[in-house]
Amino acid sequence: MAKIADIYYKLDPWKIIEEGFDSNRNMVSESIFSLGNEYMGVRGYFEEGCSCNSLLGSYFNGVYEFSKDVNKTAYKGIIDHTHFMVNSVDWLYTRIKLDEELLDLGTVEFKDFKRVLDLKEGTLTRQFIWNTKGGKTLKVRFLRFLNMDKTNEGFQRIEFEPINFTGNIKLIMALDFGIIHAAREKNYWNIVKKDFREDIAAIIGETLTSNQRVYSGFKLISDCIIEKSAYVKDKLIGYEVTVNLIKGEISKIDKLVSNLVVKDTFMDAEHIWSNGTSLVKKQEEKGFEAVLTDSTALWNNIWNRFDIQIDGDDKNQQGIRFCIFQMQQTYHGQDPNNNIGAKGLTGEAYNGHAFWDTETYCLPFFLFNNLKAAKNLLEFRYNNLNKAMERARMLDCSGACYPIATLNGEEACDLWQHASLQFQPSTGVAYGIWHYVQLSYDKEFLYTHGAEMLIQISRFLRSRGAWNQLTNKFGFYAVMGPDEFHMMVNNNCYTNYMAKKTFEYTIDVLKEMKTNSRQSYDMLQKKVNFTEEELQDLNNCAENMDILYNEETKIYEQHEGYFSLPHIEVDDIDIEDFPLYSNWSYDRIYRSDMIKQPDVLMLMFLYNQEFSSEVKEANYEYYETRCIHESSLSPSIHSVLAAELKKHEEALNFFGFATRMDLDNYNRNTREGLHTTSLAGAWVNIVYGFGGMRSDGEILKFYPSIPKIWNSYSFRVVYKEAILLIKVEKDKLNFKTLNGKSVEVSIYDEKYAIHPEGINIPFPGGSR
Amino acid sequence: MAKIADIYYKLDPWKIIEEGFDSNRNMVSESIFSLGNEYMGVRGYFEEGCSCNSLLGSYFNGVYEFSKDVNKTAYKGIIDHTHFMVNSVDWLYTRIKLDEELLDLGTVEFKDFKRVLDLKEGTLTRQFIWNTKGGKTLKVRFLRFLNMDKTNEGFQRIEFEPINFTGNIKLIMALDFGIIHAAREKNYWNIVKKDFREDIAAIIGETLTSNQRVYSGFKLISDCIIEKSAYVKDKLIGYEVTVNLIKGEISKIDKLVSNLVVKDTFMDAEHIWSNGTSLVKKQEEKGFEAVLTDSTALWNNIWNRFDIQIDGDDKNQQGIRFCIFQMQQTYHGQDPNNNIGAKGLTGEAYNGHAFWDTETYCLPFFLFNNLKAAKNLLEFRYNNLNKAMERARMLDCSGACYPIATLNGEEACDLWQHASLQFQPSTGVAYGIWHYVQLSYDKEFLYTHGAEMLIQISRFLRSRGAWNQLTNKFGFYAVMGPDEFHMMVNNNCYTNYMAKKTFEYTIDVLKEMKTNSRQSYDMLQKKVNFTEEELQDLNNCAENMDILYNEETKIYEQHEGYFSLPHIEVDDIDIEDFPLYSNWSYDRIYRSDMIKQPDVLMLMFLYNQEFSSEVKEANYEYYETRCIHESSLSPSIHSVLAAELKKHEEALNFFGFATRMDLDNYNRNTREGLHTTSLAGAWVNIVYGFGGMRSDGEILKFYPSIPKIWNSYSFRVVYKEAILLIKVEKDKLNFKTLNGKSVEVSIYDEKYAIHPEGINIPFPGGSR
Repeated sequence: MAKIADIYYKLDPWKIIEEGFDSNRNMVSESIFSLGNEYMGVRGYFEEGCSCNSLLGSYFNGVYEFSKDVNKTAYKGIIDHTHFMVNSVDWLYTRIKLDEELLDLGTVEFKDFKRVLDLKEGTLTRQFIWNTKGGKTLKVRFLRFLNMDKTNEGFQRIEFEPINFTGNIKLIMALDFGIIHAAREKNYWNIVKKDFREDIAAIIGETLTSNQRVYSGFKLISDCIIEKSAYVKDKLIGYEVTVNLIKGEISKIDKLVSNLVVKDTFMDAEHIWSNGTSLVKKQEEKGFEAVLTDSTALWNNIWNRFDIQIDGDDKNQQGIRFCIFQMQQTYHGQDPNNNIGAKGLTGEAYNGHAFWDTETYCLPFFLFNNLKAAKNLLEFRYNNLNKAMERARMLDCSGACYPIATLNGEEACDLWQHASLQFQPSTGVAYGIWHYVQLSYDKEFLYTHGAEMLIQISRFLRSRGAWNQLTNKFGFYAVMGPDEFHMMVNNNCYTNYMAKKTFEYTIDVLKEMKTNSRQSYDMLQKKVNFTEEELQDLNNCAENMDILYNEETKIYEQHEGYFSLPHIEVDDIDIEDFPLYSNWSYDRIYRSDMIKQPDVLMLMFLYNQEFSSEVKEANYEYYETRCIHESSLSPSIHSVLAAELKKHEEALNFFGFATRMDLDNYNRNTREGLHTTSLAGAWVNIVYGFGGMRSDGEILKFYPSIPKIWNSYSFRVVYKEAILLIKVEKDKLNFKTLNGKSVEVSIYDEKYAIHPEGINIPFPGGSR
Repeated sequence: MAKIADIYYKLDPWKIIEEGFDSNRNMVSESIFSLGNEYMGVRGYFEEGCSCNSLLGSYFNGVYEFSKDVNKTAYKGIIDHTHFMVNSVDWLYTRIKLDEELLDLGTVEFKDFKRVLDLKEGTLTRQFIWNTKGGKTLKVRFLRFLNMDKTNEGFQRIEFEPINFTGNIKLIMALDFGIIHAAREKNYWNIVKKDFREDIAAIIGETLTSNQRVYSGFKLISDCIIEKSAYVKDKLIGYEVTVNLIKGEISKIDKLVSNLVVKDTFMDAEHIWSNGTSLVKKQEEKGFEAVLTDSTALWNNIWNRFDIQIDGDDKNQQGIRFCIFQMQQTYHGQDPNNNIGAKGLTGEAYNGHAFWDTETYCLPFFLFNNLKAAKNLLEFRYNNLNKAMERARMLDCSGACYPIATLNGEEACDLWQHASLQFQPSTGVAYGIWHYVQLSYDKEFLYTHGAEMLIQISRFLRSRGAWNQLTNKFGFYAVMGPDEFHMMVNNNCYTNYMAKKTFEYTIDVLKEMKTNSRQSYDMLQKKVNFTEEELQDLNNCAENMDILYNEETKIYEQHEGYFSLPHIEVDDIDIEDFPLYSNWSYDRIYRSDMIKQPDVLMLMFLYNQEFSSEVKEANYEYYETRCIHESSLSPSIHSVLAAELKKHEEALNFFGFATRMDLDNYNRNTREGLHTTSLAGAWVNIVYGFGGMRSDGEILKFYPSIPKIWNSYSFRVVYKEAILLIKVEKDKLNFKTLNGKSVEVSIYDEKYAIHPEGINIPFPGGSR
């Protein structure tokens, strides 16, 4: 895999540290140092303004605008307008002037720059020493954090410590809706209201066409402000303050900001205002320090359930914690109307859209630590079932077709070759329901919400599929599987297999409901009006599903004709050619056996236990050599399978890409935002890969292994209410529960009851 | 084929007649009554203005604007901006007022409306009786025609005959660049200059971004104008005139217009002006009547070479003459910088672009009657060879890739699925060169221009193709053949076969040149630097070309996997669903065995003699039932093959669609312009179909047949300088030459020398 690390940040088990400022890397750092709490996210930009390249981004989950671009060539079923997560209020807006010198790290003289993201506490700090042209030396320190519990709340602290002078400094501290959505070079906000009341400066902005409103209000807390006056501009409100600095003493200003998203277009502005005001007041009541203490405790709790420790590999230790941290920041199941954008809340690339990554990569992360979050992700799909049904209509199909990219449930991908041909989102939702129920036993969800989605997804697949006129097998024609380097293919193995499983599970669930919960069965029957014939038809399709398999080589053919495609040696492709989408003619990407990401192998990850080791090995050997991993999600899946196939070196190499994708800017596009869903992939990688966990059977199974260079590692999963701690050392394993519960799991295909006191198990065949 | 005639115009062997005005059909009639002379074209709109639905269109061959739409998702090789034939000056602009009542056939009271397109003379006349609100009755008659020889010249005549009054009438007669390009609802002209000099009103317009200029100037000739004053508006210049009408007498005003296109951006406006002025003066010198007389004579000459007579089928008689007439109007080989737009000069659909239709459908029309025109069409491609080479570079390929749609040689199709996947234009040019040389023996063209195109086309195809990794056959992957209902397919039979023929012909031509014209061979070798190895490699590709053929069924597979695609009964598709592009989800069109137009059968038309009757029959039976003919070019090819296979009823049915496609508005979109290239298809249809002519062998062959309902038909072709007249009667054929020459042809596989005195040949097996 031709990817090269760009190592920049200091190694530390719990921190991301930048020492000295590289302005060329500023946008990458802004992504890396992002903060978020699911409700909102803010990039690690310099709040005082900076003339360096910067993407000043502040986003709220689910706050979007409609794109005004109309797709001229929108034939039927092709999306002609889209929506995108819109850059919102810069609630950290600050300007600092000392003797008329504006603080701008792009132009002023400074030293001892240090920026630290503390993963244990959830804080971002930055400090440096500013030497003004007038000869003054001032130590400046910024701190910011978001409340993970009361997610409206953001906190900013600025500290000044003059080294060689006493005197005044001037600041502007404000809220700015004049923010530019960088990807479209435009501001998307009208101001509904801005005012100062009860010592709170507040502003309500409204998006131009989606008419979503955001209230932002703040209070300044400081005992060193000697002058404060209103500072108001077109889309900005705040204060100009003068702070008296005394040589050798630290002066501190705290900004307490509450942001409130209002999607209800009927709520009047005054009502929003008063809700916002009371949020700021509560925030002030609790106070900066108390919230910071609580927030640290909350992060501590998170780490108690999620932490992964790696002894003997500092890079991956830092990397995996960064992944877990950023994933928590992006989503922790607070609201079923939120989902997980491909870039989280850290940038504008991919428009903030959620993809099929949610169910296939992110869901497992939550299934084993936060079932409520896992359920909420599925509730998001249920809440948008009607929109998926509308989408199926647009495609001349029945049932429900889930969007390839969305914020609000509507398909937002205007490339027909993806939006009309890829059904991973739909089969992924079905898989997600199955996986969730498998681990949660949440039959209520299954019977009231899950089953309805299943029947509608099955209906869509049934109407989109067709019968081969020679073999009379059922399959899908003109599709694109997970591998996005082959389009308009027939009988993509992944698509057909996933559809078969969807049909079977739908039938099973309905049978089970009929027996176990006749009332919900009848209600569902009444609501969606399915018939016995329909279920028999689904069964017939499942039984006759066209799965292309070569008995001799034991290789599944990715799609019809794949085996005979012209061959490309992927290792011979010039590194300058990557990313191929930018450097190769578009059609050239699609006509060889080169694949972008796992397709058949993805199936072998999702339904791991349905394939023999021999088959997995044959397919891995065949497809891995043809894969260029141009998706950030590719390495972790390969790593999981490599670990299973005892290709330990390879597994570790892939793992490194997954954990440090963004920290080392492997894809050279971290500046656009983090590869959030691949952060989840990194967790999947270690737990399913080295941990060898398998969750696609009746009992949770483990086949742990350990890379040669590691001394030990440990991870935690919650299973049947027990918090399992699995520690893997060179020569033995230790399994125990942390919360007093006991639970049965399978380890190397033997069942063990795991108790709080734990058990040691030797590695089969000794250490690797 | 689910297409229904909308019969409206009166039947007449030499005229298209509209009696009574149906305003709902106004835009269709505007297309039907279009005039053109290759240089310019003007729709049959009412020059006095009309409040009915109208597309007021006036176009010049090759005068285009650049589209400002940028394709946002333009990956490499995808066209991000296009060009289009732009609606230009309304040089017929007229307004007529009688007692303050404006003549507008959308609002005034009138009767006895009659509009006539005279195919023999090339004139359009229109007359009606206008009853004003004030009780006046006035007979109005319009006449217009374009000079087919001096193609800058346009003529307009207006005649008034007052029935019940004597008095004045007021007219504005002008030139208007304020014309709206209907497809984009925008005017694209700046005015460089407008003025009255030497009694000529003239104006120079310049396109906004392509900076092409058009001069338009006119003179009024009339002895009944009693007042004339300047009438000038923003983009318009002309006169307001008062004409004195005398009861019972005809008053006549002639407008003589010269238009001059200037693509040379360096020419200064004064120079253009003086060139334009001298054109108007020459036009006046010759005079209206003299030009009309010459023009009629010129049309007479055209008919002497092109006429097709059908005895016993008035509809097809009228239809075929309409086709020949409109084809001549669109193109007759005046200028190698012109080409043939899919809609000719009759509308804005398809942006005026020329497609692969030029070489495959239009070229034969000229090959047998006007070799200069045929050659000019190929010169157009030679003149644009550099642009085709640039296009190949954009596609990461070598050589030259001819555009799927163009006016100026650059690819103008921004749908990658066509522009990057269809190679019919390139193989079509190679076929065209071969076909032209086959009939013209123009070795000079072949050696100096043709061979260079051939080697560059072959290079493109070689670099775009690839080797199957299992069979080690050469072929094309991720392509779209002529059938546009299957995309990203592999080893499309047509594409592979045409490439094989292109390689073989290229090699043959270079061999021949090496022997026959070493100098041109060396020059070419020096210019394009080909090697023996390269030619051997092409030969290897040709020999190993993957042509999918089923020995048992004798059917060529359209592409890999076609035979097993889900089957659709095309006859079961609801007629309301057509056109499918508008009514079916885009992806739905691409995933069954339904085809849009001939693909394998197209091949069997182009290389007819390389396939046995048995094979042709098997493939016809198979593919015709799967074809919905959603291309206007489809019926004629099917008709030709049906005639060959003795399916005479079917052949005649298809022929009817071809000849009367627009007259009967079969596709319900004639309002957008004529299906110009399918007009050529109609000629091909009768000559290659019923006439059974075959031009793809060493000698010209004929296998005539005659539809049951026809008494006789005749057609003319020029072959080896002899004008052949072939008359086919119920029970015999008569072949003779019209210009004193003798020539050998094959008739039912026997060779005959054809002399001026002619020979009669009985039908084999009696009358059909």
